[in-house]
Amino acid sequence: MLNEALLAAREGVAQSDEDLFEELRIPSVSALPEYREDVRRNARWLIERLERIGFKTSLTDVAGGRHPVLQADLDVDPKLPRLTIYGHYDVQPADPVELWTTPPFEPTVRDGRVFARGAADNKGNHMAAIKAVEFCRKAGGPPVNLRFLIEGEEEITGEALGHYVRENAERLATDWVLVWDGGFGEDGSPSLTLGLRGILYVQLEAVGPGIDLHSGVYGGVAPNPLNTLAHVISSLKGRDGRITIPGFYDRVRRPTDAELEQWRRPAEYAETLKRLTQSESLEGEAEYPLLVRQWARPTLDVHGMMGGFTGEGVKTVIPSRAMAKVSMRLVPDQDPKEILPNLKKYVAELGTRGVKIEVRQLGATRPCLIGADNAAAAAAMDAFEAAFGRKPRFVRSGGSIPVAIDLQEALNAPMVSSGLPEADSAPHSPNERYSLDHYHRGIEMLIRFMYALPTQGTC
Amino acid sequence: MLNEALLAAREGVAQSDEDLFEELRIPSVSALPEYREDVRRNARWLIERLERIGFKTSLTDVAGGRHPVLQADLDVDPKLPRLTIYGHYDVQPADPVELWTTPPFEPTVRDGRVFARGAADNKGNHMAAIKAVEFCRKAGGPPVNLRFLIEGEEEITGEALGHYVRENAERLATDWVLVWDGGFGEDGSPSLTLGLRGILYVQLEAVGPGIDLHSGVYGGVAPNPLNTLAHVISSLKGRDGRITIPGFYDRVRRPTDAELEQWRRPAEYAETLKRLTQSESLEGEAEYPLLVRQWARPTLDVHGMMGGFTGEGVKTVIPSRAMAKVSMRLVPDQDPKEILPNLKKYVAELGTRGVKIEVRQLGATRPCLIGADNAAAAAAMDAFEAAFGRKPRFVRSGGSIPVAIDLQEALNAPMVSSGLPEADSAPHSPNERYSLDHYHRGIEMLIRFMYALPTQGTC
Repeated sequence: MLNEALLAAREGVAQSDEDLFEELRIPSVSALPEYREDVRRNARWLIERLERIGFKTSLTDVAGGRHPVLQADLDVDPKLPRLTIYGHYDVQPADPVELWTTPPFEPTVRDGRVFARGAADNKGNHMAAIKAVEFCRKAGGPPVNLRFLIEGEEEITGEALGHYVRENAERLATDWVLVWDGGFGEDGSPSLTLGLRGILYVQLEAVGPGIDLHSGVYGGVAPNPLNTLAHVISSLKGRDGRITIPGFYDRVRRPTDAELEQWRRPAEYAETLKRLTQSESLEGEAEYPLLVRQWARPTLDVHGMMGGFTGEGVKTVIPSRAMAKVSMRLVPDQDPKEILPNLKKYVAELGTRGVKIEVRQLGATRPCLIGADNAAAAAAMDAFEAAFGRKPRFVRSGGSIPVAIDLQEALNAPMVSSGLPEADSAPHSPNERYSLDHYHRGIEMLIRFMYALPTQGTC
Repeated sequence: MLNEALLAAREGVAQSDEDLFEELRIPSVSALPEYREDVRRNARWLIERLERIGFKTSLTDVAGGRHPVLQADLDVDPKLPRLTIYGHYDVQPADPVELWTTPPFEPTVRDGRVFARGAADNKGNHMAAIKAVEFCRKAGGPPVNLRFLIEGEEEITGEALGHYVRENAERLATDWVLVWDGGFGEDGSPSLTLGLRGILYVQLEAVGPGIDLHSGVYGGVAPNPLNTLAHVISSLKGRDGRITIPGFYDRVRRPTDAELEQWRRPAEYAETLKRLTQSESLEGEAEYPLLVRQWARPTLDVHGMMGGFTGEGVKTVIPSRAMAKVSMRLVPDQDPKEILPNLKKYVAELGTRGVKIEVRQLGATRPCLIGADNAAAAAAMDAFEAAFGRKPRFVRSGGSIPVAIDLQEALNAPMVSSGLPEADSAPHSPNERYSLDHYHRGIEMLIRFMYALPTQGTC
């Protein structure tokens, strides 16, 4: 049955590509209200496709959520265990659109890679899983009961799926969870992620004078929200990369010696990072190795800032308002619920008398630790090695998968976190891309993975 | 002749209003390329109007300039002296347009004030001067030769008029210069400006990674141009209002004791400023009185800042680029030519390794000191008192009139700097407005001023 499924996958490569491209044409940008209908259309497109291969599906609008949760169940045999696969059908905004070589929602193949927003994050991953199930069906499988949980709010740190799994924890009981939103390492190896950073994402809104002012008349006496916002942001993190929010590092857990050993990289890794980021120099906490900074150290980055006159030429205005978007990546055992009030208090102290700064939380996810001592991890290791010729490395991820901790806590099942896209797939940048070779081998890997799972479950 | 001119002015009030409104309907925004033709149309509109009352005119495109210089001469009698009146026909951008109660280029009268972009700065001033001459003509005057120099680049710190007056200094010889771009004081008194702050306006352009990056993957190692720009801007000025650019204060001249005496204000002046700026608290160098900070202390303000993702919701991007617009108001005897290289060197020191910051000068004007011991100043004092019932106070201006220093140096004639708009006319803000009572009395004041000038010139 395994071999028949693999054969079907090889024969179906062209159709697999077409199916992926079809989903990539749907601009399911969850952050922007004008794409709301497209996001929902993407969910319905997946529903139609999953039902075609035998899944029972539901699309649920969760109270407080913006985009619905897709659940799809395939019950093969009640005696078999169940694998739950997590993915998301929403994508990042495409801007700056002018930096794309080809339009972000017209998938285009160049040098064996498909260029499109969402190609790597996450459509390339979840379409490989759906196709893998489809080929297993053709071969009389799959050998395991399946459940897809595919959300539409991953890129906006939404909480709909978190609520959904907590509220439905009992009926969502599962033997294993595959968090399928990761990718390969810079060295070209597949990876199993044993830890994820969390995030606390806030918007700082500064209000100074009630009206825009002429800096010639009032410069020297009027508060300026842009100057103050720069003061505050500058003070939140030193030039040494050290974050100054009181208590921020109190709960940071040192990685194990075994992890630190595994994360050693040759000196050229710095050059690799410079090339991948197209930076002349790296920055951050110089006293920590690079991978430790990416995986096990918290960070603070400004993602956007706007205020005043930003057109061509000069306008001597003291603006009334200014805004900044800032996030902190968090590591085990930091808790965004503890950090937010400290941040608010600190920002109030850092401000100036004439400027009020509101700190508004836009998203929060706790960091997550995942073990590798379970049958699903072993099956994934073997399947990757068979399909790609390389065993996965144990890694952490610097990124947050908001739902990972919810899945872990609500379902209490062994988790595997991994994925297919290559390291330079530029998931949130212009010209996001995805190797079709990874896609095809990935479908094989997933078929092998399902057939390698034990027929006895964990629950 | 004086009384006939004043009578004509009073009888012509309705037409004076109509003429002002007609000019206010022209959106002569010099900063924005899409208004280029409107700026020129405004110049031609003034030409037509000045020629109608007997002026010989020229419109000159100066090499390197963006908008033409308008010169208009009225030669009454070669034996009489000549008064040169300076103004500008360009206006600030209207944005944020959504904060205007009525459209910025549809002049609307409410409570005796006309609301429109340019109403106060500078159309309300120069139209009063043009109307004053027109009424003098009707009454057989004016009693002095006249010249208007009206530029189209005041709001973009352009250099066209500066070049023009230096290149044509000899044939532009004049007995007095009236720099007619000021306004009334907060106490409701007219004012003669005896000093103007200069300005150095720069754009900081920060480039970090060559592409936008995912902060989950690269946060902790990638340079972030927004964080760095915040560091740099924060470092340029302390929370105490003190600017830290090396050598910045070296040439700052202390105002005279007589000036400091005249600039004393009661404690309520702070409340007045809070009301005018709609601020809960004032900021700046606490050790200096408020008016000294507005008139005789240099400042540094951020006028605009932009970078990264500024839409609704979250995007966890480390942006490749960020931009800030910053200006320093300068006081006698600071020189922007000296300060710019110090600023560039300092910004390079303040930056971080992975971020390149370019400092691009967008405008520079030296500060200016003006005396009051000349016949034109005396004539202006009397004319203001007769028309408004109040003698002007000697003040300085916190704003820059780029051409004032050029006029002073090239023409070497006694200068009077003043104007008509009330203090809360919001010249660079939404809902710019101008009292029609000031406009009507201002026309009278200007008629009286011309008749009070001596018939013997200075050159």
